[in-house]
Amino acid sequence: MLIIALDPPFGPNGEYDEVYVVKETSNYAAGYKVGIPLVLGSGLEAIQAVKKASGKPVIADFKLADIGDIMAEIARKLAKSGADSIVVHGFIGVGNGVDKVVSEARKLGVGVILVVSMSHRGSEKYIDKHFEEMLNDALSLEVHGIVVPATRPWIIERARKAAGSSLKIYAPGIGVQGARPGTALCAGADYEIVGRFITRSSSPGESAREVYKSQLESVRACRG
Amino acid sequence: MLIIALDPPFGPNGEYDEVYVVKETSNYAAGYKVGIPLVLGSGLEAIQAVKKASGKPVIADFKLADIGDIMAEIARKLAKSGADSIVVHGFIGVGNGVDKVVSEARKLGVGVILVVSMSHRGSEKYIDKHFEEMLNDALSLEVHGIVVPATRPWIIERARKAAGSSLKIYAPGIGVQGARPGTALCAGADYEIVGRFITRSSSPGESAREVYKSQLESVRACRG
Repeated sequence: MLIIALDPPFGPNGEYDEVYVVKETSNYAAGYKVGIPLVLGSGLEAIQAVKKASGKPVIADFKLADIGDIMAEIARKLAKSGADSIVVHGFIGVGNGVDKVVSEARKLGVGVILVVSMSHRGSEKYIDKHFEEMLNDALSLEVHGIVVPATRPWIIERARKAAGSSLKIYAPGIGVQGARPGTALCAGADYEIVGRFITRSSSPGESAREVYKSQLESVRACRG
Repeated sequence: MLIIALDPPFGPNGEYDEVYVVKETSNYAAGYKVGIPLVLGSGLEAIQAVKKASGKPVIADFKLADIGDIMAEIARKLAKSGADSIVVHGFIGVGNGVDKVVSEARKLGVGVILVVSMSHRGSEKYIDKHFEEMLNDALSLEVHGIVVPATRPWIIERARKAAGSSLKIYAPGIGVQGARPGTALCAGADYEIVGRFITRSSSPGESAREVYKSQLESVRACRG
């Protein structure tokens, strides 16, 4: 239920690398999320390195937001590098957009996780206005999952109600961005994504254990 | 007035590389656009290689669409690699989003080009509904430019009217995606972005010359 977002730098002063963080935390993580900043520094090889060091699935979170052909091309490269799933923006829409990368990903055996809301304040301006429509796109395209921020638990509840068990719900925004561990799980998310609270810690393993313990306690309290 | 989008593969069967295409076409190009697919294959060094081979500015078109902190981190890496400008999605909104990467880019001396409409059909579903608002964001944030597709000339006309000379307008969608060279320039764009028609050609230099000539003829006809 914990996904760790591996955005550099690692450690309070950048003294660690991604493999160190993964080895310290893999007992508490259900998977890892690798984004553009890490790949720009360590190359696409980082995906395999994280998989190998953790034995856990890796989400390639490039937040793809391009025309269908370009996203399909990137999906092929990410699949070849070992990514288990990729993150795509729902706001790109269906029509030589999201639909094209979803069908390519299906051929590649890679899951698509659609962003339908984000954790920053600006998300309210445009993205959140189309949350219901993008959720419907996710359901009709039968994607693997969606991203809904932990900072908006009412949106998670709404998504879970509409999706039943047909979509995995991934919730970023825990820790430095403001939401407490367990908030999103209690609202109906499958996974909480935590980054800086763990990756910038002087002891990533300790911090991951702390988050994981808080998640367990919250879930025990809210689910009874 | 011609920007060439360097998305691999190059040549009809992938027989060229980006530096070959750049050397063949630099007489006709005002600049080049480098995206995620090229960087995943050739590394961030591709930006400097393109600049060196062409002597022209390079746009790093990652279509950034993340929270402000992550986009700012990517902007720093792209600036360090020699990018003259970066492409960011207006859809992310202001509020720890677009505003954050714009202020970081200003410090770095890098231009921000905001996507306010796209060339694929799906753009009509969500993005185009907020075109006017995102155009206002671009104007109030005083960014370097905006992306508006050549396939929607009426949106280019509207943008030019609202922006006057305060924004550069970049228009993709020429060639394989359907719009004729010059369409966007005549509607008010500063640059037309052409990819596959040139990069997949057996003679990229010939094809670039052809596009450039068509642009000149169109502009002569429409501007008198």
